Amino acid sequence: MESRASMAPAPRALPYYVAFSQLLGLTVVATTGAWLGLYRGGIAWESALQFNVHPLCMVIGLVFLQGDALLVYRVFRNEAKRTTKVLHGLLHVFAFIIALVGLVAVFDYHRKNGYADLYSLHSWCGILVFVLYFVQWLVGFSFFLFPGASFSLRSRYRPQHIFFGATIFLLSLGTALLGLKEALLFKLGTKYSTFEPEGVLANVLGLLLASFGVAVLYILTRGDWKRPPQAEEQALSMDFKTLTEGDSPSSQ
Amino acid sequence: MESRASMAPAPRALPYYVAFSQLLGLTVVATTGAWLGLYRGGIAWESALQFNVHPLCMVIGLVFLQGDALLVYRVFRNEAKRTTKVLHGLLHVFAFIIALVGLVAVFDYHRKNGYADLYSLHSWCGILVFVLYFVQWLVGFSFFLFPGASFSLRSRYRPQHIFFGATIFLLSLGTALLGLKEALLFKLGTKYSTFEPEGVLANVLGLLLASFGVAVLYILTRGDWKRPPQAEEQALSMDFKTLTEGDSPSSQ
Repeated sequence: MESRASMAPAPRALPYYVAFSQLLGLTVVATTGAWLGLYRGGIAWESALQFNVHPLCMVIGLVFLQGDALLVYRVFRNEAKRTTKVLHGLLHVFAFIIALVGLVAVFDYHRKNGYADLYSLHSWCGILVFVLYFVQWLVGFSFFLFPGASFSLRSRYRPQHIFFGATIFLLSLGTALLGLKEALLFKLGTKYSTFEPEGVLANVLGLLLASFGVAVLYILTRGDWKRPPQAEEQALSMDFKTLTEGDSPSSQ
Repeated sequence: MESRASMAPAPRALPYYVAFSQLLGLTVVATTGAWLGLYRGGIAWESALQFNVHPLCMVIGLVFLQGDALLVYRVFRNEAKRTTKVLHGLLHVFAFIIALVGLVAVFDYHRKNGYADLYSLHSWCGILVFVLYFVQWLVGFSFFLFPGASFSLRSRYRPQHIFFGATIFLLSLGTALLGLKEALLFKLGTKYSTFEPEGVLANVLGLLLASFGVAVLYILTRGDWKRPPQAEEQALSMDFKTLTEGDSPSSQ
């Protein structure tokens, strides 16, 4: 029993779905780069190009890396739980730092050009998502990585952490779509309706962003792809009753 | 055992969450009406106001009614499964018809004014969501309401139906946000950045739309709020092993 639990074979289709999600995620990042390079003059910190740092950082941080952080428990199924946790937390730290650079870029760009801050739905959603992301990380860290929290407290918080993690990821994607639309309409205006190449490329980028979200969500929510409890956890686990009734400490 | 299964008490907190989601949903519809009434001249079929039929119908159909159709299995926990299924299917039919009116309104408005169709990300997402919604309904109907499909086929399709149902709902919300942003930027332009009352109201509407989505998703995904198998289903059910091991036909 123990060898099955500690080295459970990965579900056969899972690696293909993960590979597909990574292909989609990298295509999203590349398409964002292509859009900014081809139609927005590229990227720089000191000049009007500073704005372009914002979409690129947000897509790398709060879309690609955040999505991958959610997939860690599906991909590293047979690593020690603690290693997986640390990787999950670290990916979120990288995502947060990159998003912070993206946030500083847009506020700095607005300040230099005298533009108003925080008036649009995109910016309201963006600030909300950023604050929620930070709070979720802090609460997650103090429950799961900091050694204080009891096992039962962790068990009760875990479903909330998972739900709000997936929700914040989806809100990040929605915010990215709003920002893309805003950037398009500000620049293209009525030319958007003439199927300008930039408009078509940005629409494709929007569909790719949504597809990446669907792919990550599918992998996350497949019941039979969830990480199996490991030997080290089984000694403590209260909820593996459904995995194998006979070994359960609570069965009669 | 049978009385517990056929009249399982609703989880205590569920009614409050459902009430909150309905309050949010109705506030979304009312705010959409207020926005169109206060800042867009109201609604009519024959005039420039025909466009306004589009957002109102989409919000009522593909946001509020679609969301409520997903909640049917959580709210009507003790009705016969077939009654609940028919209600679920019917709510989706109403949602589809109302959305169809909204779709006809915008195409008709574009045609009368010589505007281009289907150039924006909002319209691409919208058409995609509408087609997926129709296909999902057809496939769902032929698997679950049409008497042909076998029990094992239904069991295998059910998780896919649930995943794609929730995904289409989320994509509908994302599309609504994109449409709202488009309507705002086309009319307000740079005035958006001066915190015009219309802009602020529409931003609030956007946040309400996202909140309704989060509330529906939370109710849907809470594990302990799932509909318990009923006496009538238990005779057939293959997956209630986790509910009570002793009664399972597959247990030794």
